[in-house]
Amino acid sequence: MFRNRMPRYEILSEDAMATLDGGWRRLVTEIGVEFMSDRALDLFRAAGQRVEDNTVFLDPDFLLEQVAKAPREFDVQARNPERSVHIGGDAMAFSGVYGPPFVREGAVRRDATMDDFRNFTRLAQSYDVLDSAGGVICEPNDAPLDSRHLDMTLALATLTDKLFMGNVVSGPNARDVIEMTSILFGEGKGREHGRASIEETPATISLVNCNSPLRWDDRMLDALFEYSAANQAVVLTPFLLMGAMSPVTVPAALVQQIAEALSGIALSQLIRPGSPAIFGSFLSNIDMQSGSPMFGTPESGVGLLCTGQVARHFGLPFRSGGTLTSSQVPDAQAGYEALMTMLPTFLAGANWVMHSAGWLEGGLVSCYEKFVMDVELVQMLQHEFTPLEIDEASLAFGAHEEVGHGGHFLGAMHTMERFRTCFYRPFLSSSENFERWTRNGGKDTAARATEVYRQRLQDYEAPPLDEAILEELQEFVVRRRAELGD
Amino acid sequence: MFRNRMPRYEILSEDAMATLDGGWRRLVTEIGVEFMSDRALDLFRAAGQRVEDNTVFLDPDFLLEQVAKAPREFDVQARNPERSVHIGGDAMAFSGVYGPPFVREGAVRRDATMDDFRNFTRLAQSYDVLDSAGGVICEPNDAPLDSRHLDMTLALATLTDKLFMGNVVSGPNARDVIEMTSILFGEGKGREHGRASIEETPATISLVNCNSPLRWDDRMLDALFEYSAANQAVVLTPFLLMGAMSPVTVPAALVQQIAEALSGIALSQLIRPGSPAIFGSFLSNIDMQSGSPMFGTPESGVGLLCTGQVARHFGLPFRSGGTLTSSQVPDAQAGYEALMTMLPTFLAGANWVMHSAGWLEGGLVSCYEKFVMDVELVQMLQHEFTPLEIDEASLAFGAHEEVGHGGHFLGAMHTMERFRTCFYRPFLSSSENFERWTRNGGKDTAARATEVYRQRLQDYEAPPLDEAILEELQEFVVRRRAELGD
Repeated sequence: MFRNRMPRYEILSEDAMATLDGGWRRLVTEIGVEFMSDRALDLFRAAGQRVEDNTVFLDPDFLLEQVAKAPREFDVQARNPERSVHIGGDAMAFSGVYGPPFVREGAVRRDATMDDFRNFTRLAQSYDVLDSAGGVICEPNDAPLDSRHLDMTLALATLTDKLFMGNVVSGPNARDVIEMTSILFGEGKGREHGRASIEETPATISLVNCNSPLRWDDRMLDALFEYSAANQAVVLTPFLLMGAMSPVTVPAALVQQIAEALSGIALSQLIRPGSPAIFGSFLSNIDMQSGSPMFGTPESGVGLLCTGQVARHFGLPFRSGGTLTSSQVPDAQAGYEALMTMLPTFLAGANWVMHSAGWLEGGLVSCYEKFVMDVELVQMLQHEFTPLEIDEASLAFGAHEEVGHGGHFLGAMHTMERFRTCFYRPFLSSSENFERWTRNGGKDTAARATEVYRQRLQDYEAPPLDEAILEELQEFVVRRRAELGD
Repeated sequence: MFRNRMPRYEILSEDAMATLDGGWRRLVTEIGVEFMSDRALDLFRAAGQRVEDNTVFLDPDFLLEQVAKAPREFDVQARNPERSVHIGGDAMAFSGVYGPPFVREGAVRRDATMDDFRNFTRLAQSYDVLDSAGGVICEPNDAPLDSRHLDMTLALATLTDKLFMGNVVSGPNARDVIEMTSILFGEGKGREHGRASIEETPATISLVNCNSPLRWDDRMLDALFEYSAANQAVVLTPFLLMGAMSPVTVPAALVQQIAEALSGIALSQLIRPGSPAIFGSFLSNIDMQSGSPMFGTPESGVGLLCTGQVARHFGLPFRSGGTLTSSQVPDAQAGYEALMTMLPTFLAGANWVMHSAGWLEGGLVSCYEKFVMDVELVQMLQHEFTPLEIDEASLAFGAHEEVGHGGHFLGAMHTMERFRTCFYRPFLSSSENFERWTRNGGKDTAARATEVYRQRLQDYEAPPLDEAILEELQEFVVRRRAELGD
């Protein structure tokens, strides 16, 4: 997996950090955080926090004590051990887009289906640069509503051998995911063995969003209870579109983000001390004229840089970034907005990067073409954020002796020794000259991306899976679907 | 003008810098630098440097002594004093694309004309974010070859009131530019007054490229002699496509870049001590399979970050960056490659940013649509690289008291007070929802850009210019064209 050994780009002064610290402390103390769950309220009450109705008024130092129980870094296992990842430190793990109800391929935009879900999962499996397909890589609208989490989990578990994200629609859904993951990690010794294995080292990461501002809803909290109790990793994510779910200033958004994330993480530690939790960030802004969400904005870039610094301040791994865009099609705007978020993602050293590939149209669309564009971007950036080796050999003095003034280095020994690997080699970007590009059909990036993803799907090979485990998973899905009445 | 008050992102350790220092010292001492100009060789010889044929073997400490004579920062005046710029320190000045022989508008790619040149110049004038149209914003192939520098300079001097770049095709061309600039700055007191004014504070910046590796050609050096003698700013730019004009490793390219830039700057100081000079960088790589130049690559991004650090190491303002791309059309690749260079340009704090708008197809094409896309990018980045104000008011505690848990901030007082200016407002990027976007024609970014630039040209207003000065400029052009036999 990728380790970002380049420096972090930090823009908050100590004074600024102190001001932010004062801000979130006041917020949790005086405004408090709402938890729409009696179990959560009971835990906070039992821990000595003041509770009124659904609002918990939190002692900031109590929050920090709880947060300190969460591991600074941890491993998440994939069923193929070579795909297991580390979360935290200089490690960066990348997963696909999450949540879109629609799909775009070429000029067609339509409802997403389970076939799309499987195709995106296959694409994610086929690119090494992605550590996970993610979770709801698109919302399969043709699958039965109450049991589609089973279909999605089955696809993620069988079509990839990478880690996957757990369903968070409800507590029972989360239990199903944990059961299926236990089956998957049974190693022929049964579900209990698998359960022990994933409780030892988590095998899923699940996204628990805050209903910002300052409210955690019941169903997501029910899922949190399941995952944290089973020692599965959770991402506690304030969902902040400045102007709507938070004030319009970045410092206010940061303060609110800290209050929300820490309160959620504290709950995870009350549920199970030491369970893995990730400081989540989903921070952008709305268009103040139309109210539309906007992505790839300067404000979101700045927020991302600050978020990394804030998360390190609290000693927590953090989730942020992606290849977000508001654009309706995979065009120039989609390209620059994606990088407008993804480059700061690397500068900030985000540890768990959701929405790394496929995001389009403000997150409403999973786009096949955008998926492969984004893979190219992530690969480029991983290359860029690999430190230079600077030694005598890299200075190539001998090449200058060989080439002399005004010559060229194409045939120099130093070049011949290194030409295969010296530069990042794109698979999608084109530097063909105009004549050759025209002869080859004059295809723009989106048109080339169509060809790339189709070929990629044709070449896809499913990772091997024990037949008995596959059957047990399938039986589980059938039984649970019947129980759910779908 | 824009001041980049954000931190610099520096990736070279002290050890790395020491290794690079050793590298360029060895290069100038043992390989030396070729100057295809007897005047240049005479100056170096007279200053005690060893000269063999056209090669000057340079004492590194002598080089540094000369370089130390160049100002660390300086002003460049525009005929509209409000458009004057500062070069160096935290100041960043932006100019248009430079050099392309072709133009693209929409689906049409064709030879550039003088009309195109004027149109791009008008566009550059109309966007405040650009400090200069640049110089050869496209190569006007319908203008007579030997005198087209007069047409270009006249257009730059009259259609904009911003600073412009000088022609560098030959010494006589440079003299013509200096004459015309002297006329322009005459303020009704004549050409001599103007000459004194621009010699006091330079009014042009001119690009002197190295014929890399390690060779300075005669015609560009002739231009350098003219500009430096007149105290006009020059950019000494190694032209490095790794794999062709430099070795394939970034450290080798950096070392060569230092050797070339410092040797050119030293010459400028031998011509006129204290004359303004800029450390130039044009650093990318070729595709090792096809030999095509590639832009917006990870290697060029890394090189750019290092270049900023290197230039500061020598106490020099530097030129680098832009919105470079290899893409043949203003598509997704053009978008992400442009930002792949322009974001590091801000991280490195480049002082003079050429190719800020309009570059397409590896610099062979000036593209109207790309021009306005790039303006949007530069505006976004200027917004992003403006430090946050972090104080109590920005934390918006009152807004939380007003809104409460799970509410929204659209109508909050804090929002109402700030909604007009709180976020960057794009003029090209779209966040319209799909239905509205479809109703409005379903136009991608390039199609919207066509509308933007056409409207912009319609709305263009020429900046006021004294009639007598205009006539004197026109007479100068007519007379010189006749003398040149065009």
